[in-house]
Amino acid sequence: MAYGYWKKRMFHEAVFNLFFRQQPFDGGYTIVCGLSDAIDYLRYFKFESDDLKYLNELTGNDGNPLFADGFLDYLEQLEFCCNVDAVPEGTVVFPHEPLLRISGPLLQCQLFEGALLNILNFQTLIATKSVRICLAAKGAPVLEFGLRRAHGVDGALAASRAAYIGGCAATSNVLAGKVLGIPVRGTQAHSWVMSFPSELEAFRAFAETMPGNATFLVDTYDSISGVYHAVEVGKSLRAQGKELSAIRLDSGDLAYLSIQARQILDEAGFQSTKILASNDLDEHVIGSLHEQGAAIDQWGVGTKLVTTFDQPALGGVYKLGALRTRGGKWQYKIKLSEQAAKISNPGSLQIRRFEYREEYFADMIYNEASGTEPSRVIVDIADVTIHRNVPSTATFRDLLIPIFRSGELVYKKPSIHEIRKLVSDELGRFYTGIKRLLNPHIYLVGLDEGLHRLKVNLIQEARRHTTEPEE
Amino acid sequence: MAYGYWKKRMFHEAVFNLFFRQQPFDGGYTIVCGLSDAIDYLRYFKFESDDLKYLNELTGNDGNPLFADGFLDYLEQLEFCCNVDAVPEGTVVFPHEPLLRISGPLLQCQLFEGALLNILNFQTLIATKSVRICLAAKGAPVLEFGLRRAHGVDGALAASRAAYIGGCAATSNVLAGKVLGIPVRGTQAHSWVMSFPSELEAFRAFAETMPGNATFLVDTYDSISGVYHAVEVGKSLRAQGKELSAIRLDSGDLAYLSIQARQILDEAGFQSTKILASNDLDEHVIGSLHEQGAAIDQWGVGTKLVTTFDQPALGGVYKLGALRTRGGKWQYKIKLSEQAAKISNPGSLQIRRFEYREEYFADMIYNEASGTEPSRVIVDIADVTIHRNVPSTATFRDLLIPIFRSGELVYKKPSIHEIRKLVSDELGRFYTGIKRLLNPHIYLVGLDEGLHRLKVNLIQEARRHTTEPEE
Repeated sequence: MAYGYWKKRMFHEAVFNLFFRQQPFDGGYTIVCGLSDAIDYLRYFKFESDDLKYLNELTGNDGNPLFADGFLDYLEQLEFCCNVDAVPEGTVVFPHEPLLRISGPLLQCQLFEGALLNILNFQTLIATKSVRICLAAKGAPVLEFGLRRAHGVDGALAASRAAYIGGCAATSNVLAGKVLGIPVRGTQAHSWVMSFPSELEAFRAFAETMPGNATFLVDTYDSISGVYHAVEVGKSLRAQGKELSAIRLDSGDLAYLSIQARQILDEAGFQSTKILASNDLDEHVIGSLHEQGAAIDQWGVGTKLVTTFDQPALGGVYKLGALRTRGGKWQYKIKLSEQAAKISNPGSLQIRRFEYREEYFADMIYNEASGTEPSRVIVDIADVTIHRNVPSTATFRDLLIPIFRSGELVYKKPSIHEIRKLVSDELGRFYTGIKRLLNPHIYLVGLDEGLHRLKVNLIQEARRHTTEPEE
Repeated sequence: MAYGYWKKRMFHEAVFNLFFRQQPFDGGYTIVCGLSDAIDYLRYFKFESDDLKYLNELTGNDGNPLFADGFLDYLEQLEFCCNVDAVPEGTVVFPHEPLLRISGPLLQCQLFEGALLNILNFQTLIATKSVRICLAAKGAPVLEFGLRRAHGVDGALAASRAAYIGGCAATSNVLAGKVLGIPVRGTQAHSWVMSFPSELEAFRAFAETMPGNATFLVDTYDSISGVYHAVEVGKSLRAQGKELSAIRLDSGDLAYLSIQARQILDEAGFQSTKILASNDLDEHVIGSLHEQGAAIDQWGVGTKLVTTFDQPALGGVYKLGALRTRGGKWQYKIKLSEQAAKISNPGSLQIRRFEYREEYFADMIYNEASGTEPSRVIVDIADVTIHRNVPSTATFRDLLIPIFRSGELVYKKPSIHEIRKLVSDELGRFYTGIKRLLNPHIYLVGLDEGLHRLKVNLIQEARRHTTEPEE
């Protein structure tokens, strides 16, 4: 496609909007994540000599070189010069809202589609899942233990990052700790216990190694028996002025076992020893364990979080919104579909978030390139007969902020800790029902009335060209 | 754990076995994949100065440094010196079979657990899914279009690799083409069509750019209308001695639309123009489209393949099988579970694959460290009352082959193309019913009788230590 744009001399200015169409996990909210990596990708984008060498060797079906030489020279000279606006990481977003908007040469904008979607789709999905799990844990620490099941090395790293942003307290991935500054935590594997002649000796050895961090994995042979062994070692620790930090349950009936373990620990005088549970946990299992009165203080979550097991992909897309020749007028663009919700929104899109009576009231998507002030009437996207007026006293802010201007980074990246804090601050400003797991409250999101009219006109215009030719 | 082994002077020799317990996707076979990346990981493993600096800064709950200095010096000196045996990539494997076995210093073996599982779990999952999808396509080319939905940059790269090994004909990820030597293929995005004043002009422009590779995406506005436009441009192409290669359907009722499109193309004299279909396809949808008589010649598969959507994690684990002091006798190790199938198998495990009457007959897992020739009686893992005799005329080969010896690579990696060929060659040697999607034939896999007896003894021994202490 880039070659085609070059060959046809289509050096237009384009605007692309990146958005998704459905809430992941049948939820009521989504947490945007990944911008930091997207920024680094764009910032350092360049065709290196080995890239060009590879492209030069590609041939078409006819065996001839795929690209003319001039094109590769053009790519060699290419310097990132786009404008990028994006919703800061950690912000709560909703379907159809542009998470990122890029404008600049059509060819450049097109080149970045795959990578930007790859980065934002995945981290957004994980951050959202992490929030759901952490909310289910009701404030108890959630530790991310997903390295072994994540999709590749940076699948794991990016997952650790997004999981921490979503609220996880720590990761077991030491590389993520080193590279991203996330707290690291772990217990021990069954192999530790199996390496010693007995479980008791294994616990003793661990206590001697890490007297300040004594957490014992009790299910290598039998969980209840393991708890008694932990208590035994806990007594020796106490004699040295140290404490038994925690035990970890990793299999079996976690509700039953945690209640039994709590009783054994309490009766032995270890009321402050925590119980950590793991084993294919997600927000639903954690919720169910809470309901059963499970005595679990900390949660280790791996597979179901870092692969977002119940929905391993966010359907983010990247659609052309407008095009113009240099200095010309914007031509707005639309992609049709038989389903109304799958028709793209035209324009250079911005999100206006209204606040009313100290709570977020609604989001309105509008076309920032229209040159006119957006309305205060919001039109539903799936059902265009629904129009909602924004109260006159509602205040607002626009969510997309400048990231790049003509290829220059104009945004100071917040720290991962600041982003993490933003998540909980922002979520607290919505009606609480959006956080429900089952049939969540649907927050109002729609189009500015002007954008809606533009869209309808474009749909009708496009449909005029799609009648079948006469036979 | 590594710190503990160091501090307790546990410089034992260990054997760990990496395996999974359940067929992914409720299938009848699994294709092992990822060894090449695992080899590179081990080969270049080293603690760099910035790693040690980071570890040196870690503190425990008590605020003191987590590790004693001597330990970090030890890590700095650490050189990979293990033996590794593994099943070559592309081989068909089954639950409980060791895909990789590593022996060497306990501390080293332990360090590699997370990364080895990360690499092998993911690529094995994708290669298996790819085979399933390619088999459903019945020989029609399957193109991997997953970059935008994959989990991170190397999540995408590794997925492209494993998908190609499983049988995909090409990838849309140009980086995978460059780095891995996989054929690259793509069509155009909706944005290409939207960038021109009309679909017809967009197709014409693409045909001028790539006259030898004219594939047109027809569903930007209306698929049938798009097919007529493709035919119109196809006629101009033909006038120049070129051909309309293909059209691509990317939404709607693919069965209905493909049949309609085929008719329009045929009636216009474009019998050789292919129809490529995409849109959330997997083996089940492709199978259903075949049954409906869909006229689809090529398949573009993305999300459902590269995220293995219906099961995004393979539950591979890494278990200690045996331990000995240097020069001593092996102590065999076992992890208990309430479920028989979740109890680990002890020993330094090898797989013996028997062939009988020109078909693979059964696999037997045995302990290569036992020093005695394995039996020809196979004991079922889930139901130990089932014993099967191997026919006396059956031949065999052992699947794990040497990869590293004392840290030296002794294996020549095959090319990705050789691995891809191995997959189809090997699958063809099993009873065909293992390839069924619904209730596949279960290939016989079990333990050597001697290993089974060792395991039972160890279980009974371990259970003797798990009775609860008297109150």
